[in-house]
Amino acid sequence: MIQSVAFIGLGAMGYRMAAHLPKHFETVYVWNRTFAKAEEHAVEYGTQAVALEQAVQADIIFSCLPTSADVEALVQGLSLKAGSIWVDCTSGVPDAARHLEEALTEQGVIFLDAPVSGQTIGAENGTLTVMVGGNAEGFEKALPAMQAFGKLIKHVGTSGAGFAVKAVNNMLLAVNLCAAAEGFTTLKAHGVDLNEALDCINASSGKSNVTETVLRQRILNRSFPVTFALPLLAKDTGIALDLARDAKLAVPLLALGQSLMQAASNLSDKNSDFSSAVKMYESWSNITIE
Amino acid sequence: MIQSVAFIGLGAMGYRMAAHLPKHFETVYVWNRTFAKAEEHAVEYGTQAVALEQAVQADIIFSCLPTSADVEALVQGLSLKAGSIWVDCTSGVPDAARHLEEALTEQGVIFLDAPVSGQTIGAENGTLTVMVGGNAEGFEKALPAMQAFGKLIKHVGTSGAGFAVKAVNNMLLAVNLCAAAEGFTTLKAHGVDLNEALDCINASSGKSNVTETVLRQRILNRSFPVTFALPLLAKDTGIALDLARDAKLAVPLLALGQSLMQAASNLSDKNSDFSSAVKMYESWSNITIE
Amino acid sequence: MIQSVAFIGLGAMGYRMAAHLPKHFETVYVWNRTFAKAEEHAVEYGTQAVALEQAVQADIIFSCLPTSADVEALVQGLSLKAGSIWVDCTSGVPDAARHLEEALTEQGVIFLDAPVSGQTIGAENGTLTVMVGGNAEGFEKALPAMQAFGKLIKHVGTSGAGFAVKAVNNMLLAVNLCAAAEGFTTLKAHGVDLNEALDCINASSGKSNVTETVLRQRILNRSFPVTFALPLLAKDTGIALDLARDAKLAVPLLALGQSLMQAASNLSDKNSDFSSAVKMYESWSNITIE
Amino acid sequence: MIQSVAFIGLGAMGYRMAAHLPKHFETVYVWNRTFAKAEEHAVEYGTQAVALEQAVQADIIFSCLPTSADVEALVQGLSLKAGSIWVDCTSGVPDAARHLEEALTEQGVIFLDAPVSGQTIGAENGTLTVMVGGNAEGFEKALPAMQAFGKLIKHVGTSGAGFAVKAVNNMLLAVNLCAAAEGFTTLKAHGVDLNEALDCINASSGKSNVTETVLRQRILNRSFPVTFALPLLAKDTGIALDLARDAKLAVPLLALGQSLMQAASNLSDKNSDFSSAVKMYESWSNITIE
Repeated sequence: MIQSVAFIGLGAMGYRMAAHLPKHFETVYVWNRTFAKAEEHAVEYGTQAVALEQAVQADIIFSCLPTSADVEALVQGLSLKAGSIWVDCTSGVPDAARHLEEALTEQGVIFLDAPVSGQTIGAENGTLTVMVGGNAEGFEKALPAMQAFGKLIKHVGTSGAGFAVKAVNNMLLAVNLCAAAEGFTTLKAHGVDLNEALDCINASSGKSNVTETVLRQRILNRSFPVTFALPLLAKDTGIALDLARDAKLAVPLLALGQSLMQAASNLSDKNSDFSSAVKMYESWSNITIE
Repeated sequence: MIQSVAFIGLGAMGYRMAAHLPKHFETVYVWNRTFAKAEEHAVEYGTQAVALEQAVQADIIFSCLPTSADVEALVQGLSLKAGSIWVDCTSGVPDAARHLEEALTEQGVIFLDAPVSGQTIGAENGTLTVMVGGNAEGFEKALPAMQAFGKLIKHVGTSGAGFAVKAVNNMLLAVNLCAAAEGFTTLKAHGVDLNEALDCINASSGKSNVTETVLRQRILNRSFPVTFALPLLAKDTGIALDLARDAKLAVPLLALGQSLMQAASNLSDKNSDFSSAVKMYESWSNITIE
Repeated sequence: MIQSVAFIGLGAMGYRMAAHLPKHFETVYVWNRTFAKAEEHAVEYGTQAVALEQAVQADIIFSCLPTSADVEALVQGLSLKAGSIWVDCTSGVPDAARHLEEALTEQGVIFLDAPVSGQTIGAENGTLTVMVGGNAEGFEKALPAMQAFGKLIKHVGTSGAGFAVKAVNNMLLAVNLCAAAEGFTTLKAHGVDLNEALDCINASSGKSNVTETVLRQRILNRSFPVTFALPLLAKDTGIALDLARDAKLAVPLLALGQSLMQAASNLSDKNSDFSSAVKMYESWSNITIE
Repeated sequence: MIQSVAFIGLGAMGYRMAAHLPKHFETVYVWNRTFAKAEEHAVEYGTQAVALEQAVQADIIFSCLPTSADVEALVQGLSLKAGSIWVDCTSGVPDAARHLEEALTEQGVIFLDAPVSGQTIGAENGTLTVMVGGNAEGFEKALPAMQAFGKLIKHVGTSGAGFAVKAVNNMLLAVNLCAAAEGFTTLKAHGVDLNEALDCINASSGKSNVTETVLRQRILNRSFPVTFALPLLAKDTGIALDLARDAKLAVPLLALGQSLMQAASNLSDKNSDFSSAVKMYESWSNITIE
């Protein structure tokens, strides 16, 4: 039985994910580097803002930080409670998952890599997808806690598998985005009505999440709302490419997609939404996708 | 008022599309190079198998042939009826559409490029998507006839725009397919459960028609049913790339996607389904996507 | 015996190439659209500035224009002298060579595609490389005239073969240039001394004309002298890619190289030297290759 | 003054490099994992085959192993002599150079990364190019020893810079090779005489070491002599790509080149020469480059 849960890292995703926990668990610790954020969460949702050392005494500890390096730095030197489970929702690196699993096992703690997808709206509604790597028993034990914010929750393999699936998902997003940018610039150059074309493609074999939601909600209306920063997507494509490279696989499209995303990120403001990668293509063609 | 319609080219798509016409129009001519096919259609659906010269006297003439070159060869030397509309459902070349429009205008005939998507199942159910380029008035006049087999029917621009949208759609299909092949080989190499991973991605930002239907229905079950031949998809990616090149656009991902599809096609049997392009990746990695 | 020669198109290359002809032939006609250029040439080198109709009555007619389309437009309607040979030094399109060969054969004229390499300095010194496609007999007859400005003169195949070799040469230049730009930005980012590195590479397996001359003479010294315009190189890469596409070949690196060159050209001033393509990479990395 | 030198790793390169040392130094230790090789060297060249522990007591210690991981494993646990210099001629990883420099500094030993180029023929003739990273003072001290087998010896930067230059050189070789394979398949498909075309290109702007030596000496004559294994070149392209990735650079051509080299390597026998990468292209086109 889970008596206590903790949530570490109250960013745009974590703040909303942690908000669901008090509905299901009596003791919910929260911690954030900028501690005022934790106190604000406590006031708003009835969680307890506590010191990091206390937070990690919970039965289930969630973390959601920008990178795996942040998680590794945070874990270093912490004294954990044997029998607890650490569920890391960061979009992290599979190798880091294996290092963390090894390090935490020494303290009798199970480590699960459990990145999420569904963006802030999914976090708010508790309908995230959670892709989990690690020990199967740990997965079963942590499942009730993950259900607080997740809808589709899958055990996809051993340690690192969750991070791998997330990285590949985001790589597909990146490639599909670049391909759509190239395709729609081409159509515009030939005088095609983009809105009508989009309707056709969304009823056809070339459709993707990019054509179904990203183009309409972010690009064609020129809103580019910053819900997922372009440098983070560029980072994720790098994680996916490293996975392929580690296995000595040839992945020409992914390798090129990573480079294009890196170029777009380098050319953009740090706080740009991932969808603004299309602006690099627009600068090449003097064509605006609208 | 449309009194008569004709359908030229009774291949896998055309045969099924033409089958809907007798429900809406009294006089329906059909013609096919292998004429027995037309006679079979007449028996099965109550159409009239007639000579090409007679077929093209209909008010609305549909054509659905392998390539634009086939349509151009067929039209050459035909005497058409002023006031009729030729609706070409071939997955053709935008430049050819403009040549045909010009040539037919001289005979007082409107030419529309109107490629379809939805595959044989959509043709059978009359639920195809039709993307139409050409004269707006011609589009309005031909609409009732297209509604016999189409569900979403869009006027996307002037002559050639329909072909352009179809080519870009198929290019996106090709790129998304290659990216998915690379991504799923990578996951398999790292021991991830592909079925669980697919569920996660289909609930996430990286999903596409490829992950939602092609992977499950054609690849993971190793069926590769031949409904759309790989060389034809390779051809369509070439049409899309030419469009970009004509407009002096830089389209790195599409250019690479075209080359990969060409390589996969060159390495495959002519009668392979487009989904078997993944076998090229499998030969590079000794990993089977299943 | 060659009695008279003509040179049509006195651009940066043609002006210098034509200058060698009076040393070897008594009658040398020159013509240029901006006719003052022809008159200037006549004064400077003792050639005869004449009307186009007269120029094309020479035994050997050289042309050197920006594109094959210019040559085709110029030839249209001209009345030529049977038995003469037209030697086109334009960096042209193989298909155009075949059309021109066919058209000129009707007037009893042999057409050779004979693009040159060696830049303005090679034109000035009469040390150009000439790659010739077309009829072997015509090649032998025209050889003495080509020797006026060429040093290495090769018959590489039937009509169009000369243009093909030139296009592939320029494609290799473009790819080698982009690769070097990417490689040297990478070295600079890691604090490597580029001049020392260049010495090493030029003594190693990775060397190319780009590392041996372009980097030192145009890029590292930031001079970018405009001797060969970037849009023309982008055009040539397109010709090479079309050749591959026509033969249904998969050429991933060339296809990507073409797109990158197109992007660099689109981002640059029309009058930029081809070497300034590296500035696109510099904008991606904030690193200057110097 | 250098009193003693050692050479560790007597492979195809090391065996020949070490052969020059006795001409310049009185005491020359050699060591090899398969020790018979060291004894053979001692007999042939008058070096001393000694235990690894003794070899590393020399003033200058050269190493030349397959990968940086081999060097790191070998160094582990060795007791070195303060004041000596370790010169690693492996084609290694820049990060490893920095780790080794740090580790050796603790024992008062200078570490230089000093990969070579010039192949076995250059090793035999003592005309190798040596690209050296690390401490400038160490470079000056070790220079006389490196001159035994090197002709062009350059200090290109701090620790890791030598490895970086070598990796980029080999990446350029790989990209130039793939581009040439694509270009020459295209020419062959159009009936061009490859030998004549090669002469033209080698006198033109598209030339490279690949067109000048690799095509003629290894590919067109179908000899593919195994002097540098394809998997090692694939590995080196990975090192170069990692360097770009570490610096968050966008390197589309290098990224694609790495993938193509990886695919070609995966499809080939482990003991294939790097030049046999062209066979992948030949399988795509059914065209032999000869």
